[in-house]
Amino acid sequence: MLGAHPALPVGAGDDCAVCLLDHSEFDQVFTTDPVIENVHFIKGECPERIGNKAVGRVLSDIAAMGANPQWMLVNVVASPDQSFSELEKIYEGINALCARFGATVIGGDLAQGPCLELHIFGTGLLPSGSALLRSGAQPGDLILITGPLGCSISGKHLDFVPRVEEGIFLRKSNKVNAMMDISDGLATDLRHILKQSGVGAILDSEQIPKNGNLEQALFDGEDFELLFTVPADNVDSLILEWESEFSSSLSVIGEITTDKGILKVQRENELQTLATKAFEHFSGK
Amino acid sequence: MLGAHPALPVGAGDDCAVCLLDHSEFDQVFTTDPVIENVHFIKGECPERIGNKAVGRVLSDIAAMGANPQWMLVNVVASPDQSFSELEKIYEGINALCARFGATVIGGDLAQGPCLELHIFGTGLLPSGSALLRSGAQPGDLILITGPLGCSISGKHLDFVPRVEEGIFLRKSNKVNAMMDISDGLATDLRHILKQSGVGAILDSEQIPKNGNLEQALFDGEDFELLFTVPADNVDSLILEWESEFSSSLSVIGEITTDKGILKVQRENELQTLATKAFEHFSGK
Repeated sequence: MLGAHPALPVGAGDDCAVCLLDHSEFDQVFTTDPVIENVHFIKGECPERIGNKAVGRVLSDIAAMGANPQWMLVNVVASPDQSFSELEKIYEGINALCARFGATVIGGDLAQGPCLELHIFGTGLLPSGSALLRSGAQPGDLILITGPLGCSISGKHLDFVPRVEEGIFLRKSNKVNAMMDISDGLATDLRHILKQSGVGAILDSEQIPKNGNLEQALFDGEDFELLFTVPADNVDSLILEWESEFSSSLSVIGEITTDKGILKVQRENELQTLATKAFEHFSGK
Repeated sequence: MLGAHPALPVGAGDDCAVCLLDHSEFDQVFTTDPVIENVHFIKGECPERIGNKAVGRVLSDIAAMGANPQWMLVNVVASPDQSFSELEKIYEGINALCARFGATVIGGDLAQGPCLELHIFGTGLLPSGSALLRSGAQPGDLILITGPLGCSISGKHLDFVPRVEEGIFLRKSNKVNAMMDISDGLATDLRHILKQSGVGAILDSEQIPKNGNLEQALFDGEDFELLFTVPADNVDSLILEWESEFSSSLSVIGEITTDKGILKVQRENELQTLATKAFEHFSGK
């Protein structure tokens, strides 16, 4: 039930919506994410970490388009007994991460409600037509990810640093066909790329960098790493450029196939097709 | 704790933030408003009306700058037993009002929480430097409002039509010095203009168009009418132009004075100073 508009080349279904900026050489991307007490964090959690997570999710969506972060608005919902100093510390967490990536909090609202919630809206900018979408993967592309996956519940889901600089670097490389951030788990999120690009994929279980075991790397959520596809001929040079820019890891974990919508995992000499049902079971959703 | 930026001429404290659009003849305005069950509407309320109110509040803020509405993002928080058809009807209410004013819903998110909430983020566009701010009122300006005030709780707070066309008309007239929308009651909101413009005001109780009595017109909230100030010499011609465009009422209700921060009400031959304390008592806040 979302809208269409001639100046809206990418609406719902990607990490951000992409809108044309008239009379400009830039496109503007828009995203929003909620962070809710006892859903996304436990009541009493360190407030700076809550702020980091709330704005980090938004910055990760902007990074997944390859865009430069721009403006942020923050809606806070809080119960009448909410501590003011806790709110200040949440804003400190928000502002620290924004400052790191050139984003600015320009407004928002405060309302009373049953529990603590943050709803952050963010915009980003990038050169016209350069947004990295989920729909661009091609058969033969290799599949790459930043950072290890899994077990983010042990702390990473609150303390992660969104891959903003990496996303901008990858967009500027002109070597990436499709990109998104991993928020719901590798298996679930890769399926979005497969569906929107009309392709399939084979993952090599040995090559997936893991915190924990394979199940956790495939199905845990909230890693906020970048998942992207690159034509095979470009991968070696991209990795060389990456290593001269970043100390963080970059892993080739599989390949895009013509097998529409089919996700397979190579595991100990066996090629298993990963059923959507299996994911639903594993993920507990 | 909100940010500053060279491309942010107006940050927190007005109806919207105003941001420069580089290489363009336009400024972009940003705002966000929450609508929460049992705070802004009663549980079980007609869902189309909830949607109308949620996006109407955002459109009213954009109208109060004199801007043309542009993009909207919608965060929905709902409990696990939320009816899907109710959500569809909320979106129908949102989309109907957006369509009327050329706004487009381009994204959003859905999360689980304790009760139904909508957080809508919106942008608008206007020619560079033309936003109508709270800070522009001058001594000698007359004070005008659209529509009658008070008793919105009887239905208007859900069914109101934001004054988008009127806001654009007033901006284009080049006759308005300061403008905002009335969401917290005339007395409270006029004080924002007084504070930010460094002026005072005298209201004529007889001239305030009322739904209900004077107290209700001064202190009830959620009327979403436009409150603005116009140099006295321009008022007659503005009213003539208004009457050729709109059938809705426009009322001159008072005058801006040099009496910094002082709000007085002329009532039955008596000039009363309205204490902030009195307002707090009346408003029940």
